[in-house]
Amino acid sequence: MDLKLPIALSNRHIHLSKKDLDTLFGEGYELTKTKDLSQPGQFACEEKVDIQGPKGVIKGVRVLGPVRGDTQIEVSISDAFKLGVDPVIRNSGDIEGTPGVKVIGPKDEVDLDKGVIVAARHIHMHTSDGERFNVKDGDIVKVKTKGIRSVIFENVLVRVKGDYALEMHVDIEEGNAAGVKNGDLVELIKE
Amino acid sequence: MDLKLPIALSNRHIHLSKKDLDTLFGEGYELTKTKDLSQPGQFACEEKVDIQGPKGVIKGVRVLGPVRGDTQIEVSISDAFKLGVDPVIRNSGDIEGTPGVKVIGPKDEVDLDKGVIVAARHIHMHTSDGERFNVKDGDIVKVKTKGIRSVIFENVLVRVKGDYALEMHVDIEEGNAAGVKNGDLVELIKE
Repeated sequence: MDLKLPIALSNRHIHLSKKDLDTLFGEGYELTKTKDLSQPGQFACEEKVDIQGPKGVIKGVRVLGPVRGDTQIEVSISDAFKLGVDPVIRNSGDIEGTPGVKVIGPKDEVDLDKGVIVAARHIHMHTSDGERFNVKDGDIVKVKTKGIRSVIFENVLVRVKGDYALEMHVDIEEGNAAGVKNGDLVELIKE
Repeated sequence: MDLKLPIALSNRHIHLSKKDLDTLFGEGYELTKTKDLSQPGQFACEEKVDIQGPKGVIKGVRVLGPVRGDTQIEVSISDAFKLGVDPVIRNSGDIEGTPGVKVIGPKDEVDLDKGVIVAARHIHMHTSDGERFNVKDGDIVKVKTKGIRSVIFENVLVRVKGDYALEMHVDIEEGNAAGVKNGDLVELIKE
């Protein structure tokens, strides 16, 4: 049985806490949705911020909504070098001990003492997909891509939840290294 | 038997023909070596040029020496998107039908009608390494990296020659996707 699923390439982005949103954009500010993302409830916003690290700045980093408990910035390894922070590979939400940066909004700035991660590659799937693929939340699998740049990604975390949509998430560097584009089908390999 | 070899991440760079070097830097100009590269006879130069594509410019692209028969520009897929040219995966030297760009030097500019490639991942090895690894020039192998971002690169071309030094070459995006740094050891897998 072929276990195919679509892949998506995440560009650098930031999730904001309510408190940091207030500071950066002004008290009581509401995010402006421009596009729903594939995961239910998640959306891209019109708002952008600049990120300032010890070595460099990255301008125009897209804000994703809705607001979260903690501000989290997801960058590529190249971005981390440009900012001058350690590229720390982490699962989303796991930000203890990660580098901080300065976030610059139109209203004010925030000095974060943590929150910059290079997101670990992962698969979102709905509980029904989990049954179909016969994997459960927390499983580690491999994923194979096709074409001239085909790779097998090892150490891929599976996240299964009732409000997830089936999709593998990699960053731009991982996607380009594998020669895949948004929506390309990749193959899950269990071992 | 473990078949280990070092990996190196190539940043964007340009190889110049004698004719284009003359145009860009002035008649009879000689490249200034700053550093020998791992492959015998190849070196990084002090000289840099700007690359202008239909959508964007990349400034300060390093020239590698010595001069070659044809000018060739090696970029990442992200670079190709920034320039606005098709990211065409090719082996070095195979530039027929690849996109052109404008190259801007301190003296003059050159409009190339071809020469921009995204280099296909490959392994250089000396003939003695070829015997030790039991592979021959032109073989296709796989290569596995270690660590949290471990991947298996498929479709890796082996190039065996008397003046090559043992090393796998990937671009920055491939290296970062695999979580490797210059000099890290990777494992050759034959199939």
